[in-house]
Amino acid sequence: MGKLPNIPDIVIGRLPIYLRALAHMIQGGKEYTSSHELGERLGISSAQIRKDLSHFGEFGKQGTGYNLAYLYEQIRHILHVDQQWPVAIVGMGDLGHALANYRGFETRGFRVSCLFDNDVKIIGDSVAGMEILPIDVMHDVIQQQGVRVAMVAVPADQAQFVANQLAQAGVKAILNYAPITLAVPVGVRVQYIDPVAHLQHMTYYLET
Amino acid sequence: MGKLPNIPDIVIGRLPIYLRALAHMIQGGKEYTSSHELGERLGISSAQIRKDLSHFGEFGKQGTGYNLAYLYEQIRHILHVDQQWPVAIVGMGDLGHALANYRGFETRGFRVSCLFDNDVKIIGDSVAGMEILPIDVMHDVIQQQGVRVAMVAVPADQAQFVANQLAQAGVKAILNYAPITLAVPVGVRVQYIDPVAHLQHMTYYLET
Repeated sequence: MGKLPNIPDIVIGRLPIYLRALAHMIQGGKEYTSSHELGERLGISSAQIRKDLSHFGEFGKQGTGYNLAYLYEQIRHILHVDQQWPVAIVGMGDLGHALANYRGFETRGFRVSCLFDNDVKIIGDSVAGMEILPIDVMHDVIQQQGVRVAMVAVPADQAQFVANQLAQAGVKAILNYAPITLAVPVGVRVQYIDPVAHLQHMTYYLET
Repeated sequence: MGKLPNIPDIVIGRLPIYLRALAHMIQGGKEYTSSHELGERLGISSAQIRKDLSHFGEFGKQGTGYNLAYLYEQIRHILHVDQQWPVAIVGMGDLGHALANYRGFETRGFRVSCLFDNDVKIIGDSVAGMEILPIDVMHDVIQQQGVRVAMVAVPADQAQFVANQLAQAGVKAILNYAPITLAVPVGVRVQYIDPVAHLQHMTYYLET
């Protein structure tokens, strides 16, 4: 499958959610699903799901629905997670530890391959079988390992510096946990994990 | 301001992002901004920002733009974060520790008020000045403290059980870190933190 142009980014953002639900259905022993069933599970309309998937081809059959294993493999391929991307973690506080020890990466296309921090008290420590390395060597290690994906779990006032270093080393995708909007060169993508933004989204709906 | 009906949820979801950017601008000493400047900072079109904000009233003036302090206070009020919501954390592994120690809640409308785990080896430990309590007492503590917001950082196979308990105790907003879609009663909202979904969203755009 070649590069598919003109697909809205918001559609791409839903594919990982579909993939996660499909994986759970497959684990549960199911072989087929429908846009209706998937929609019920995810709180998304079946029309939306059919429209999203139609950007990429014909995956379902009228009557029998989607073959789960087939749809799962196709979406893995579309998202380029039918391979394992090596991932760097920068910032090895509690959050960095949680990410390094998280067991949900391998089955979903990623493998934590290197850990960095600037605190001499923890550099050299072993976490999840890897040694915490100093930021000084980050550029070289990232290039040697061909890392293009990184997670940033440093304090807000260090995140921009770290992002600059990562971009210079060739990282193209940054998942940023620091509560700050990063400026990055063209060609580098950033996604944000901000738990407070999610909480605030929900308190809008709560009676005060 | 009364309840504002019929505002798309996707618009509500962008308000916390605007709020975060406004806070950073105010911290930086600025007094005014424009939809153009805000858009540049966030990678959102200025037209989108003006349209989003127009759902809630007239915040800007032609020529001078938005008064930052005023807009910030208005959005805080709209999102109900001009108060502090007590928050429960369930699951006190590395991630729960990271959340309990995170200093970004207080200024943005939340205060971690209780910690729970089912591991007798850590129950009673003190984290961020709070004692880790057993799940057995969760229902009572949540009701006593009037907690309606919780963060779930337990393994996937325990998350649905915990969500059930939280909903029964009166929690209305759950931020779920476990990689599983939760079923909750009507009136309870769930948002998900799934780092892998964000990574997969970005690898779509990477050359393989």
